Amino acid sequence: MKVGVFDSGIGGLTVVKSLLQHQLFEEIIYFGDTARVPYGIKDKNTIIRYAIEAVEFFKNFDLDLIIVACNTVSAYALDEMREHSPCPVVGVVEAGIRASHNGIKNKNANILIIGTKATINSKAYETGLKNKGFTNIQAKATGLFVPFVEENIYEGALLQESFRHYFKNITKPDAIILGCTHFPLISDALQHYFKDDVILIHSGDAIVEQLENEFTFIKKHTKPNLKFFASENPEALRGVAKKWLNI
Amino acid sequence: MKVGVFDSGIGGLTVVKSLLQHQLFEEIIYFGDTARVPYGIKDKNTIIRYAIEAVEFFKNFDLDLIIVACNTVSAYALDEMREHSPCPVVGVVEAGIRASHNGIKNKNANILIIGTKATINSKAYETGLKNKGFTNIQAKATGLFVPFVEENIYEGALLQESFRHYFKNITKPDAIILGCTHFPLISDALQHYFKDDVILIHSGDAIVEQLENEFTFIKKHTKPNLKFFASENPEALRGVAKKWLNI
Repeated sequence: MKVGVFDSGIGGLTVVKSLLQHQLFEEIIYFGDTARVPYGIKDKNTIIRYAIEAVEFFKNFDLDLIIVACNTVSAYALDEMREHSPCPVVGVVEAGIRASHNGIKNKNANILIIGTKATINSKAYETGLKNKGFTNIQAKATGLFVPFVEENIYEGALLQESFRHYFKNITKPDAIILGCTHFPLISDALQHYFKDDVILIHSGDAIVEQLENEFTFIKKHTKPNLKFFASENPEALRGVAKKWLNI
Repeated sequence: MKVGVFDSGIGGLTVVKSLLQHQLFEEIIYFGDTARVPYGIKDKNTIIRYAIEAVEFFKNFDLDLIIVACNTVSAYALDEMREHSPCPVVGVVEAGIRASHNGIKNKNANILIIGTKATINSKAYETGLKNKGFTNIQAKATGLFVPFVEENIYEGALLQESFRHYFKNITKPDAIILGCTHFPLISDALQHYFKDDVILIHSGDAIVEQLENEFTFIKKHTKPNLKFFASENPEALRGVAKKWLNI
């Protein structure tokens, strides 16, 4: 099977990492809209317009499936992408809600959703979790976490200070939904800040769980063919991909 | 006179503020490329492409002058904008270099340039200051300052921690070039961190100084006509403009 993975930038590579670990797909076509990144500060209509353009780009490749690795796009533009796409489209938000439903047994568990401003404002996770019966939900837009990762800050005093800044009025959660594909890169620091008993829900793992349940016909491939495209500076994206994915 | 002010987003409003304070221009047309902001993390070729598109947009207005309020665009795309523009184009980088030359008398003064990754990588300020005879120059990309301002963080523990992060290996400067139009909003905090004897060079004031010297025919207008355009969500831009500019 041939899959397209779409993200606003490089963050979706954390989803590709999960796909590779589970040896899914024969061919992975990654597209990062690096010329217009980040999406998380942008408007609903703009995000939808960019997402439909990504579907048009993927039409060049005769794909079997599109994975929306970007939480912001998944929160706002999944229906519109499905309307325009000739193949199925799955997104990390739906996957994350499903993974929470499967992984968190207590419906009164305190769940903290963190993400970009756009993702949090959409209330996509919140609504989905409530529909699954969860009652105790906190949500916090953590707009600086993407810039931190882009600056290669994954630990240290500045990141800890930002945790105190964002989480000062947050009740200690039982689980945290990492509602942005950049956030797995600071998951160790988050785990340390909130102590080890906090469950972290990771978009990449959530997508793999959904695919293994719903697309049981997917055959394993130890060496998938990988292609990386970007709307600017694809060489830089390929460089980061090589480093992050050890390819 | 009718002027166009171009910025990647809302930061250029700090330049408009200076123009208003000095009562320059009869009509100010502001264009913020909010659908593709920020430019400071992007590639040279992308920045040039977006800048030429802004010139095309301004052709609708029969302008007398274009002011590039964005340091990143000024650093990379001024020549290309001039090639495509029917009217003169001035940029904040050239203005900042000129203002430093006029305002800092000692050529051995320690000057610190701060800006986005793209602006610092361009070495536009560095080269210009060296050509003016300055010998003692430090430059630091401070990628988090724009996100801080976008998050309305202008002071406090987190911002101070980021100063320690970025400036730990910086020798105390005599002057700082605020090489990004967002930075005047954290200038009080910077002034406090580096103590009161540090001179801050501000893009908006630098442009006004250049205009008053070179465009002496500009007539003063106490109530200029202001128009704000944005590539996404112009209402939000107008809202910020009203607040920042007290209009």
